Amino acid sequence: MADVTNAGVPELLQAIAPEVEKIEQIMLQDLREASAGADPLLREVLEYGLLNGGKRLRPLLVVLAARLCGFKEENDDKETLYKLAIAFEYLHCATLFHDDVIDRADMRRGKPSVNEKFGTIAAILGGDFLHSRSMFLIGSLGGRKALQIFCNATNAMVDGEFLQLRNAQNYNLSEDDYLAAVKGKTALLIAATCEIGAIAAGASTAKQLALAQYGISLGTAFQIVDDLLDYMGDVAKTGKVIGNDFQEGKMTLPVILTIAEANTEDKASLLFLLENTSARRDGFPEAFEIIQRYDGFGRSRKSAESVVAKAVAGLEIFSGKNVSPILTIFKALAQYVLTREK
Amino acid sequence: MADVTNAGVPELLQAIAPEVEKIEQIMLQDLREASAGADPLLREVLEYGLLNGGKRLRPLLVVLAARLCGFKEENDDKETLYKLAIAFEYLHCATLFHDDVIDRADMRRGKPSVNEKFGTIAAILGGDFLHSRSMFLIGSLGGRKALQIFCNATNAMVDGEFLQLRNAQNYNLSEDDYLAAVKGKTALLIAATCEIGAIAAGASTAKQLALAQYGISLGTAFQIVDDLLDYMGDVAKTGKVIGNDFQEGKMTLPVILTIAEANTEDKASLLFLLENTSARRDGFPEAFEIIQRYDGFGRSRKSAESVVAKAVAGLEIFSGKNVSPILTIFKALAQYVLTREK
Repeated sequence: MADVTNAGVPELLQAIAPEVEKIEQIMLQDLREASAGADPLLREVLEYGLLNGGKRLRPLLVVLAARLCGFKEENDDKETLYKLAIAFEYLHCATLFHDDVIDRADMRRGKPSVNEKFGTIAAILGGDFLHSRSMFLIGSLGGRKALQIFCNATNAMVDGEFLQLRNAQNYNLSEDDYLAAVKGKTALLIAATCEIGAIAAGASTAKQLALAQYGISLGTAFQIVDDLLDYMGDVAKTGKVIGNDFQEGKMTLPVILTIAEANTEDKASLLFLLENTSARRDGFPEAFEIIQRYDGFGRSRKSAESVVAKAVAGLEIFSGKNVSPILTIFKALAQYVLTREK
Repeated sequence: MADVTNAGVPELLQAIAPEVEKIEQIMLQDLREASAGADPLLREVLEYGLLNGGKRLRPLLVVLAARLCGFKEENDDKETLYKLAIAFEYLHCATLFHDDVIDRADMRRGKPSVNEKFGTIAAILGGDFLHSRSMFLIGSLGGRKALQIFCNATNAMVDGEFLQLRNAQNYNLSEDDYLAAVKGKTALLIAATCEIGAIAAGASTAKQLALAQYGISLGTAFQIVDDLLDYMGDVAKTGKVIGNDFQEGKMTLPVILTIAEANTEDKASLLFLLENTSARRDGFPEAFEIIQRYDGFGRSRKSAESVVAKAVAGLEIFSGKNVSPILTIFKALAQYVLTREK
């Protein structure tokens, strides 16, 4: 693996490329085994939905966390590690299948969503198939503790979605409420990737905890940057329409931080724009301007930066020449989450 | 447990009533533990969907199969057995939540479906929560083999739905095609209940297999009787509209057996009614008459009877005074599946 000390994004991507390739390869192989003999349409749906150009961040974190804890590949063990890793991509894709039904989304990463292309039955049941396979891999290869962590994360995701539903009608949302929903919806699953990687390597409880904490922070920063990209991203890079969260009236971090600081008039204007479907239609520039004026974007970015700094600080438990290149990747990943443009 | 030698349905229900009550009680307790601290709406959705007056056939079979294999309750073991049992009810309800989204069903067992009452997000994510919990219970309490059986059954259900989709446009469907879809959609999960009960009791492989085979047969007969009830049931008892399968143009067993025997003219008439939405609207009595004339209902019932006879014959491996009352329940359940009116 290349040394990526002081690495920028291109060096990071180069360093992880062989791992990502290996993940893709083992995932495709496992998928074909798991769906051997199944209905041809089901197999087509699963391959279409999984081979979607995703970043494979979750499985990558499993593999890297295991390495950081001294995991050495020997015989069957390596296959086991990658199969634990791909379980997270299966679960992630299962939630995307189901989200696309819920949101009636017709596009996903620049191509028709599974729901759009194959219909609701395929999206719901295909998601169920992947969900089931993911839990089978974790349960049969990771042991009881890993299964517990994985299930907690899954159920927290469901709970986080319900919390978000509730938050959607709450225009007094605090930063803490927001962070609690993000933790359930995104961060606990990222934490689970790191923690299960550590468990696979037989790491100490302290190292498992440090990695879980890194995952929570990384996931939280990831979501904050997502919120920022929704206002400020480049559609050519993100492949997503700008202002989507705004059009749904979502209370994301830039809005929350602005409302906490704004004077009565600006607060009322911003809330009016968010609460009224008709006002939202042409209201994006005005909302953007108010948030900008109160530095809502800048303060959100600072919040993400401070979360990432915490993530990196927690890794000091890992040291020594052996882990140094992997540790560098972990730090670079944390930086990447901040600077990513898609 | 009451002796139910030569039992009819009332005696059977009386014999199993304490088990069903225990299942309900442990399920509610586990659900509350699993969702402690979760969003109140999520908890409401889960309780509403689970406490639905279901027959609890699947968990009951787990408990009875374990008993038939000599399972004795001692301390924690008993809780473990019931938790394995309720996993099947969770999974069953998860599939009902998702089916109601797919079918846009507004009613389920005489009350509004979860999808109708709480919306699509609640139905999809609530189903995901139950699915996840079910796999956690099996994986952490049943061991690797049980998890494998459970996942195979889950994935066969998904595959069976895809096969059924494909079959829906195939008006040349054979009895074997039909039985293959039923096996995946219904019977393998029933087989898994019996097999996992046997595993929990530490039964021999031969006994595991015998019970799995009983489950396949019971599940198949259950589905055939479902098809019959759709044409001949009493709406006051089933709570379902008659002719639902017909209105969807489904190739169920009475239709398949009729088409295989009918003369050219009758075959064409029946297929015309099934294939055309407008013809179906008022076509039920005519279709019913054609099927009746070729004894499609009678032959379907005979097919179910022969499947049930096979189920019961396979249980001869179990004998002795100790298991005799349980064995009687298994035989009575097989009879109940044939004679049930809802």
